Amino acid sequence: MSHFSFAFGVGTQSSQGEWLEVFYPQPVLNPSDSLVKAVAGVLGNGVITGNHAAVINAQQASQICEAMRAIDHEGQAKWLRQAADAGQPMVITLLEHDTAPTSTPEVYLKLQLLSDGQIQPHGQDLTGIFGLLPNVAWTNEGPIAVEDLTQRQMDARLRGAWLHVNAVDKFPRMVDYKVPAGVRIGDASRVRLGAHLAAGTTVMHEGFVNFNAGTAGNSMIEGRISAGVVVGKNSDLGGGCSTMGTLSGGGKEIIAVGEDSLIGANAGIGIALGNRCIVEAGLYITAGTKITVLDANNQEVGTTKGVTLSGKDDLLFRRNSQTGRVEVKPNGTAVILNDALHSHN
Amino acid sequence: MSHFSFAFGVGTQSSQGEWLEVFYPQPVLNPSDSLVKAVAGVLGNGVITGNHAAVINAQQASQICEAMRAIDHEGQAKWLRQAADAGQPMVITLLEHDTAPTSTPEVYLKLQLLSDGQIQPHGQDLTGIFGLLPNVAWTNEGPIAVEDLTQRQMDARLRGAWLHVNAVDKFPRMVDYKVPAGVRIGDASRVRLGAHLAAGTTVMHEGFVNFNAGTAGNSMIEGRISAGVVVGKNSDLGGGCSTMGTLSGGGKEIIAVGEDSLIGANAGIGIALGNRCIVEAGLYITAGTKITVLDANNQEVGTTKGVTLSGKDDLLFRRNSQTGRVEVKPNGTAVILNDALHSHN
Amino acid sequence: MSHFSFAFGVGTQSSQGEWLEVFYPQPVLNPSDSLVKAVAGVLGNGVITGNHAAVINAQQASQICEAMRAIDHEGQAKWLRQAADAGQPMVITLLEHDTAPTSTPEVYLKLQLLSDGQIQPHGQDLTGIFGLLPNVAWTNEGPIAVEDLTQRQMDARLRGAWLHVNAVDKFPRMVDYKVPAGVRIGDASRVRLGAHLAAGTTVMHEGFVNFNAGTAGNSMIEGRISAGVVVGKNSDLGGGCSTMGTLSGGGKEIIAVGEDSLIGANAGIGIALGNRCIVEAGLYITAGTKITVLDANNQEVGTTKGVTLSGKDDLLFRRNSQTGRVEVKPNGTAVILNDALHSHN
Repeated sequence: MSHFSFAFGVGTQSSQGEWLEVFYPQPVLNPSDSLVKAVAGVLGNGVITGNHAAVINAQQASQICEAMRAIDHEGQAKWLRQAADAGQPMVITLLEHDTAPTSTPEVYLKLQLLSDGQIQPHGQDLTGIFGLLPNVAWTNEGPIAVEDLTQRQMDARLRGAWLHVNAVDKFPRMVDYKVPAGVRIGDASRVRLGAHLAAGTTVMHEGFVNFNAGTAGNSMIEGRISAGVVVGKNSDLGGGCSTMGTLSGGGKEIIAVGEDSLIGANAGIGIALGNRCIVEAGLYITAGTKITVLDANNQEVGTTKGVTLSGKDDLLFRRNSQTGRVEVKPNGTAVILNDALHSHN
Repeated sequence: MSHFSFAFGVGTQSSQGEWLEVFYPQPVLNPSDSLVKAVAGVLGNGVITGNHAAVINAQQASQICEAMRAIDHEGQAKWLRQAADAGQPMVITLLEHDTAPTSTPEVYLKLQLLSDGQIQPHGQDLTGIFGLLPNVAWTNEGPIAVEDLTQRQMDARLRGAWLHVNAVDKFPRMVDYKVPAGVRIGDASRVRLGAHLAAGTTVMHEGFVNFNAGTAGNSMIEGRISAGVVVGKNSDLGGGCSTMGTLSGGGKEIIAVGEDSLIGANAGIGIALGNRCIVEAGLYITAGTKITVLDANNQEVGTTKGVTLSGKDDLLFRRNSQTGRVEVKPNGTAVILNDALHSHN
Repeated sequence: MSHFSFAFGVGTQSSQGEWLEVFYPQPVLNPSDSLVKAVAGVLGNGVITGNHAAVINAQQASQICEAMRAIDHEGQAKWLRQAADAGQPMVITLLEHDTAPTSTPEVYLKLQLLSDGQIQPHGQDLTGIFGLLPNVAWTNEGPIAVEDLTQRQMDARLRGAWLHVNAVDKFPRMVDYKVPAGVRIGDASRVRLGAHLAAGTTVMHEGFVNFNAGTAGNSMIEGRISAGVVVGKNSDLGGGCSTMGTLSGGGKEIIAVGEDSLIGANAGIGIALGNRCIVEAGLYITAGTKITVLDANNQEVGTTKGVTLSGKDDLLFRRNSQTGRVEVKPNGTAVILNDALHSHN
């Protein structure tokens, strides 16, 4: 068989019975055949092939719980046991193939596999997910369909309470679903579900991480990681810096930042950065920026466009403060990350 | 008669009985004469002229509810019916004229008319509103007067709960009062009540919208819309970009952005932008910026100051990356907004 | 005796009994000898010397309450009385000396002395605090140890509630512990506990203030105040502007901003600013920036590096928009803060 993923979830449905979101406490990548068979034993063999998001009732949850116990999947059994009688909507999502999602629970599973660290950015098929994600009001009372909001706000007030809305978005914040080990996040509203943060990552209050994007190791993120962008280990994004999602100028090449690199505060990139690169604070480099190339002795050796330097290693980008021209030169300074900064902040 | 506005609201008062805020579930612009008369039938004819914010009790709420039913205003009747017996402070705000506000409930009505989409920015008299808006701690238990906060925090802890404060400000977040249809907001703390967001607007996490400001149509807002600024349809504000509230250099001219325009990431404007304009990522244009004017063939035709270009159409602003000078040239590139970006993100 | 500080607090402990945080409703700097003796009368004379964070039980809380009454410290007595029987973890923190902290309650006391306005930034010994601050998930149900989070999220869902996480950080937001008088904060997630905000400070939504940093008087903060940075009275940080924590280029000199100064939107400093200085919008000045020095008539008088101008008064920094070079000249424009802006916004 060899399935792509399995997860048991509890979620929220609108008053029309449509899924607003699903929380999977312990999603499984590449579930064992025995796990798939155990589920099929309860739901029927029809779930063994294809991709399914099956709503289950309390009885089915209990049965799957027992089936999980029988094959020593105590972790899964625990969640099923807890949820079985609570009366919240439950779903079993079992994906044979990693293909374009076709349901909201399926998208939520894929986003959680990313944030759980089991899948790397660009590591699975996310085609068409926007159309499957409803726009939801994320409140202190949970997800609410936007059209129900005014009534719910009045209801709360009339019982002396307060409904506060944290976002109106297709994506929830990651931390309401998963906080990866070894990660700090100064303002949780700035990291979307589907972000992938490696242990050792600090996302400061000014940092931002979109879905299908993130970090590959230790990093200090005080700037914005756009959808699709991955930052290599030991790299820093300075306060307020910007990364374009794809190569500026209409390209489809994905922007990335290599290892041991630094983008200065309020700087930005519309090209990829390689390893051991620095972009000076306040400088924005795009694919079309004309850049004077200097050697290690600051002698001019030519002129090029930003796009030709995309992804290259050991470069220092700066704007000459006497002539105003943008220059690139070999980066002789290894970026030594301040250990105190990284274990702390 | 021809009144300016009517609304029924429930709100929060301090321990001294002063209004901290008012929520109007369904504010009415230009109420019919029959509606005004129905209210006057309960509250007395004295409310027909002038601007009033009248505290009402349960009996009056019930009577106004019945009066609304009698003239087929079922929407209003519904809210009055729900609120009548809940014991929360209730107010009827009836404004004959759009003049400078004189009470907190009046300011809250005008801000909600903006966010409700019934009034455009600069479309009403907001003179002196700061003095009428109390500074409030906005918490998960609702608005709290700042001087009561420490005791309330202790009270919460001693019953094993947690009082968390989202802001200490004169303005609440818009979404706790109104979420306009067709809008997404990544971080709700970044949009103040009194913002005006047209359907098709996405305010990403880095976006910000102040009061009496907003968008006129489809737009992707990843930068900051200052008080008074309006962004035309099909325009984008790139991540972290800045708009000054009024023309830089002390002018009182209000900054605006036209249609089909783009301000790049980390860029900024201290002048107005017309239609089909682009400001390059990272470039800040102010009224005093000396700008070299180029023709479509990049030939220099003169030099001017930013202020002379304020509000002009079809301009591309950039900093020459070889000479460091700021240039403007005709913008031959129509800004084609990426449909996928706009329906999504 | 002459002690450094005393405070009674209630806090949160992990399931392993370790302090996650402590709230001190009324911390005392330089407590009187009679207060210290009153505490010692209950806890034993061993607390008179050295630094202590002593967990107390209900009986001890009542006894200390009575001892406070006996010496007319009604304020302290009130909090002890309220807390005595609530069953929440209580602590007496009594510090003889201002030395490097050795416990979590001690760090929380020092951070609260800062935010309470009793200690200025750099006014006490904060050595090693990162190691004493646990990384905590700050939620609507209070602080939660990260390893307990998934279970707590499931628990909340199964009872039909929602656990939302506001941050995963060593520092909580300041306002959940203290809101200084005369301060407004547009987005409370942007100000860490340990920030020091003087009356008359407005931190707009884009502003940020780290610990051991802040303002010394009236100020409009729409940019980022890094750890250790203090902004003088009547100074403004424009939207999205950046301050480096220490002198750029590896120095240990702390960055500061003087009085009556302005950093423009999206600008930044890696040097200190003196009084009456302006940095033009969008310009980033670092220690290594080569800067052309102009006299009051815009005549060139030399070239220098940013570091030589660090902390100097009456300077205007700009990038010449025709030549791209960075220039500094005497600042003839006193920065007159707009009163309406400061009392409002």
